[in-house]
Amino acid sequence: MFKKILIANRGEIALRVIRTCKEMGIKTVAVYSTADKESLHVRFADEAVCIGPPSSKLSYLNIPSIISAAEITNADAIHPGYGFLSENAEFSRICEDYKIKFIGATADQINLMGDKSTAKDTMKKAGVPVIPGSEGLLTSVEEGIRLSEAMGYPVIIKATAGGGGKGMRIIRKSEEFQKMWDDAKMESSASFGNDGLYLEKFIEEPRHIEIQIVGDQFGKVCHLSERDCSIQRRHQKLVEETPSPVVSDELRERMGAAAIAGAEAIKYEGAGTVEFLVDKHGDFYFMEMNTRIQVEHPITEEVTDFDLIKEQIKVAAGVPISGTNYFPKMYSMECRINAEDPRQNFRPSPGTIKQMNIPGGHGVRVDSHVYAGYTIPPNYDSMIAKLIVTARSREEVIVRMKRALQEFIIEGIKTTIPFHLKLMDDETFKSGKFNTGFLDNFDFSDL
Amino acid sequence: MFKKILIANRGEIALRVIRTCKEMGIKTVAVYSTADKESLHVRFADEAVCIGPPSSKLSYLNIPSIISAAEITNADAIHPGYGFLSENAEFSRICEDYKIKFIGATADQINLMGDKSTAKDTMKKAGVPVIPGSEGLLTSVEEGIRLSEAMGYPVIIKATAGGGGKGMRIIRKSEEFQKMWDDAKMESSASFGNDGLYLEKFIEEPRHIEIQIVGDQFGKVCHLSERDCSIQRRHQKLVEETPSPVVSDELRERMGAAAIAGAEAIKYEGAGTVEFLVDKHGDFYFMEMNTRIQVEHPITEEVTDFDLIKEQIKVAAGVPISGTNYFPKMYSMECRINAEDPRQNFRPSPGTIKQMNIPGGHGVRVDSHVYAGYTIPPNYDSMIAKLIVTARSREEVIVRMKRALQEFIIEGIKTTIPFHLKLMDDETFKSGKFNTGFLDNFDFSDL
Repeated sequence: MFKKILIANRGEIALRVIRTCKEMGIKTVAVYSTADKESLHVRFADEAVCIGPPSSKLSYLNIPSIISAAEITNADAIHPGYGFLSENAEFSRICEDYKIKFIGATADQINLMGDKSTAKDTMKKAGVPVIPGSEGLLTSVEEGIRLSEAMGYPVIIKATAGGGGKGMRIIRKSEEFQKMWDDAKMESSASFGNDGLYLEKFIEEPRHIEIQIVGDQFGKVCHLSERDCSIQRRHQKLVEETPSPVVSDELRERMGAAAIAGAEAIKYEGAGTVEFLVDKHGDFYFMEMNTRIQVEHPITEEVTDFDLIKEQIKVAAGVPISGTNYFPKMYSMECRINAEDPRQNFRPSPGTIKQMNIPGGHGVRVDSHVYAGYTIPPNYDSMIAKLIVTARSREEVIVRMKRALQEFIIEGIKTTIPFHLKLMDDETFKSGKFNTGFLDNFDFSDL
Repeated sequence: MFKKILIANRGEIALRVIRTCKEMGIKTVAVYSTADKESLHVRFADEAVCIGPPSSKLSYLNIPSIISAAEITNADAIHPGYGFLSENAEFSRICEDYKIKFIGATADQINLMGDKSTAKDTMKKAGVPVIPGSEGLLTSVEEGIRLSEAMGYPVIIKATAGGGGKGMRIIRKSEEFQKMWDDAKMESSASFGNDGLYLEKFIEEPRHIEIQIVGDQFGKVCHLSERDCSIQRRHQKLVEETPSPVVSDELRERMGAAAIAGAEAIKYEGAGTVEFLVDKHGDFYFMEMNTRIQVEHPITEEVTDFDLIKEQIKVAAGVPISGTNYFPKMYSMECRINAEDPRQNFRPSPGTIKQMNIPGGHGVRVDSHVYAGYTIPPNYDSMIAKLIVTARSREEVIVRMKRALQEFIIEGIKTTIPFHLKLMDDETFKSGKFNTGFLDNFDFSDL
């Protein structure tokens, strides 16, 4: 087992990794920018090394600084957390060169899953359902109609050079194809100087559902069920829950098996997440694979009693896994508490926390690096706490979450707590019947 | 179901009850003495009524004040918490007279279990093992020897008027009886002016192990396994854990059945605890029954996923229980964090908390009513927080508890945290092989 792990991250995830290391008897090294010297991850690590000024580029993304810190402190492994260098293939390779174990995927695995089109091809070959579509660019309206009729409407055509919805059209029947094609061509040509279009099946009322997997160095992979992350605003997850209200035991089995097949195909090592879209018919399609621990991992821990950081460290140290899959025994939900003003378009609200009361009691877990008197620097992600609530049923989770949110008092800055409080009272949310578009029509004005 | 519950208590247990009421959609009324107006239980209740000055006698034990508060606020039930009026038969009866449901035992049940000798007789009749001994006072050495030989040595003779170890002798064989009898007679006569002696089997290396039970209004009782509370200093519990390291499945079945039989014999309603001594041979003996929720109830909640306060409220409202017994699925341990200086004979250390960091993360629960800036009044119990840690094994619980204790920072006052930290490193404690005398020889000087 490792003797000393350097955590190449900050905030709650750095503290989260330190906690597990302490429980495993492994020494820890924190790194920090000058903006973070008062953070709890610095206080609770056995050693701490300043790696640069506030700018992420010069500190938490500064590979030479981090490698030096590991060398100086004699760390034999690096945990990258999430974000920053966690999915940086070069960093993974450099760690390997320096004989420091990178607790995460290999450079090859990161590259393979980092490129969307390669990832999709790899998964398709492994038998994982992917979103059907044209192979490369569409050459004609006739080809488009032929493909669309084969895969079934609705479909979507997208500009290959596109972004922000430009050059994008949803088509619901063959008769519409010609007009949509002409419109999209014109728009993408005007917007991007490139009128290339490709075609995909349009996923109706999609839910974002991801499978947590763990693979060991011996090719064995298991899954720990799903997380439903459909409560998103501009592709930013705000609330996650497990089990998903729409995943039956049978669907869980199939999605789990698909995630394992995909991970086995690349001999995946470590903790990872296979993200799917699930449509209103219960069909699922591979979206992407995250080759790292995720923000929302605690809800899986709460329902399976697994410590996922411990699993990461164990498999990185060469410990084999049993290969058993784990299914939720309870319900768990996470609300991301961000230093943002939900009434002002979620504008970041850095500053000093004047007063703080952290919720407690049965079924409540808080992962946070902040405290009364702490100043949130403006340089990084605005998440300041994760509130994780667990109970016997989804209904109980929602009432408990509401009670915990009411107890969560943070004075001096704006937070997303008022949004979460409103969400817990929302009838659609409570019904469990929503999709990733749910927050598009949510009224944030009366929070 | 009740519409509004008044909580006739303060501190963490008042907050604990408020949490469950919120989750059940029941309104809450806090009561408080003038010393407690800044306490979180006042902040988080829907209404709060000041019931008197700091003195407990004039506030939390002031029955007319509390009943008035319930009448004024239209509360339809009162939860007494633990301590204060929770085992006061008169209060239970007065609540009944005022048609306010007392969430706890009836006056008769409280009286029956409150008198030690009546409780013992009742349990004995129900087939619960009690500590064998003389019926009333011993009349002669010959009777003492005859009883002792029948029940087996060692035995203990105690002064009927006694206390503080005076007039008490342990006897290990018949030959010693006459001398010990003479000594004890002389000592108790000199100390208390009464030389009456009674005899009991001496329980060797006892562990304090209690069974949590819940009974409904229809005579059904179930148990939720045991808690081991052997880590005590001067009969004050400091650490509790479940399951007990010394309770086998077979012993749990037998102790559970005995606790149920005892509770059924008195048609016990509500949550209660049957306390036993377990000797080194694995034999158990009834000690007493607590007719209320206990401080250490959360460890049972963590391993059974039951909310015991919710169960109390439900059975008080007439909801029947299923009658199924619950067995621990995990390991859980509680450390009582008291505002006391363990280096100075656990002398109370009231005062203002200047800085505070509450531990978090996987498997950590904190029940507390204090915060940075809070002033602990000198008038009440010194417990300021309960740190409850849960994991898959006792070993994991101990390392996690140690990590959580290290994160628990309370500045401005002395606390029992240094004691708990030392205990988690103690080899005897870690081995699980200790009894209620363990702390008698513990070195508190080097904390």
